[in-house]
Amino acid sequence: MTLLGDIGERELIADFRTFIRPEGRVGPGDDAAITSEGTVASTDIVTFDRHFPAGMTYEQFGWYAAAVSFSDLAAMGARPTGFLAALALPANLEAQAAYDIMSGIDQCAEFCGTGIIGGDTKRGPGIVTGTAIGTMDGRRPMLRTGAVPGDVVAVTGPLGGPAAALEAIDLGIDAEEARSTLYTPIPRVSEGMSLAESGAVSSCMDLSDGLGTALNTLCKASGVGMDVELDFIPREEYVEDIARMSGKPVKELLLDCGGEYELLFTADRGRLGKIYEAEVPFHIIGVVTEGDSPELLENGERSAISNGRY
Amino acid sequence: MTLLGDIGERELIADFRTFIRPEGRVGPGDDAAITSEGTVASTDIVTFDRHFPAGMTYEQFGWYAAAVSFSDLAAMGARPTGFLAALALPANLEAQAAYDIMSGIDQCAEFCGTGIIGGDTKRGPGIVTGTAIGTMDGRRPMLRTGAVPGDVVAVTGPLGGPAAALEAIDLGIDAEEARSTLYTPIPRVSEGMSLAESGAVSSCMDLSDGLGTALNTLCKASGVGMDVELDFIPREEYVEDIARMSGKPVKELLLDCGGEYELLFTADRGRLGKIYEAEVPFHIIGVVTEGDSPELLENGERSAISNGRY
Repeated sequence: MTLLGDIGERELIADFRTFIRPEGRVGPGDDAAITSEGTVASTDIVTFDRHFPAGMTYEQFGWYAAAVSFSDLAAMGARPTGFLAALALPANLEAQAAYDIMSGIDQCAEFCGTGIIGGDTKRGPGIVTGTAIGTMDGRRPMLRTGAVPGDVVAVTGPLGGPAAALEAIDLGIDAEEARSTLYTPIPRVSEGMSLAESGAVSSCMDLSDGLGTALNTLCKASGVGMDVELDFIPREEYVEDIARMSGKPVKELLLDCGGEYELLFTADRGRLGKIYEAEVPFHIIGVVTEGDSPELLENGERSAISNGRY
Repeated sequence: MTLLGDIGERELIADFRTFIRPEGRVGPGDDAAITSEGTVASTDIVTFDRHFPAGMTYEQFGWYAAAVSFSDLAAMGARPTGFLAALALPANLEAQAAYDIMSGIDQCAEFCGTGIIGGDTKRGPGIVTGTAIGTMDGRRPMLRTGAVPGDVVAVTGPLGGPAAALEAIDLGIDAEEARSTLYTPIPRVSEGMSLAESGAVSSCMDLSDGLGTALNTLCKASGVGMDVELDFIPREEYVEDIARMSGKPVKELLLDCGGEYELLFTADRGRLGKIYEAEVPFHIIGVVTEGDSPELLENGERSAISNGRY
């Protein structure tokens, strides 16, 4: 008898994907699903157990719960049109905490240009399942499958904040800027819409599982390799500082930790002007190659990039 | 300090509804939400704790989890276009049980004319949050607010099955027909679409909280009263039999128990022909009055209908 605990989470998700009916729809395997009517939707579970680091407030937990799903919409280039909040919370939770969670969800939805349109609540151990709904407005969705050799690899903003925040918590350091990337990640909704609109992007996904995992996922989905320059990966100075203090290599903080909510994308080199025109900030971190997996270039040395810890 | 456990579930849902942004959308307070782009969506939590009666299989649990949300779409007259399945299951659950749940969801989605388009999975105590997505195809959604005095009150099929099944389980009676209404309820999707299409329906909702609660909800939402004839409420003979065996009045089985998935609606008396034309089976159980709450007529005696136990 095989127990669920014996099956890795990724393997289980892969198994569950065999139930997804592909006819006329995007995915499985992309950040969000698209119905044949063009509705974009993504659902995510967050739990007190696993997504509630020390020092986080209930309002931040609510924001986080919503941000995760809106980020999936952002990665496709969708415009959010609604959010459904399903809360399974313990009876002994202070009622104010529940309202704070709803308030955090509401604030994140408002930031993403929409609002809570429905939901459900039952007793449970602290599990919030959010579903973000959106529309492509006629834009072509950005998928994980379109990268071709010669494309550039880019991200929309600095990385390493969430990893640095977790290290800082372990070290007992107060690192407010890092903490805010971990507790209130910004779903890159307007950036995603502009990237899709530009027509220059060949593949895209969010970084919620970390850069290392995302690079591997894009390579596998598109059947390409990537050369990524460690020095090109954008990061705030505090990430370097906390890496030094914790004794961890900075590349571990940049590549191995989930909870990042910038977008990773590849783009046709000849059409980058379209992205500059769209005024989306981005940083080129490498190029797509004829290979079959991502590799890191560090002081001229080449190494494999593995899936991260998350 | 108020704990969540001190707040009734209905009161909590009412509180949470204050977070719902109404601009340009349907609800809060209807079975499903509708975005300004016309996407219909409903999310529901079902749990091993609360929705897994003795003798139910994991496949049936999966079907049930999906049916609940599809029924909400049915009550608006929407056509389902996708289902998102978020499973928080224990590590010590047999893996086959998880696949059985997915299979049950898949079968219910297929019955409703669509499929699973996405989802998520995490560890948890056995909580499935399903989100059904749909479209109105240009039909006007059926809401809870349109009943006017003089309308007829009707349901799409026989009631009392789930209540009878629970009594039968308590009595140790094998009541297969009753059990199937409890374990694999049929979301009235095609009926809902036809009712909305007919243009004759003034208000509608599903019976998942039971007939008594639904009648009260429609009356409150529409600002009307209703006279319901007990004898008119359709029921299979086994419901009468099990009522007799359990010593419970049959009206308790018909009115007080949730888990029903027929639709309750009101319709313009002069346009009932449109519903006959649409070939939706239905049973008139009463009339809408100038009052402000539903009342039951039983052998000429009049009594208030209260909210049910669920």
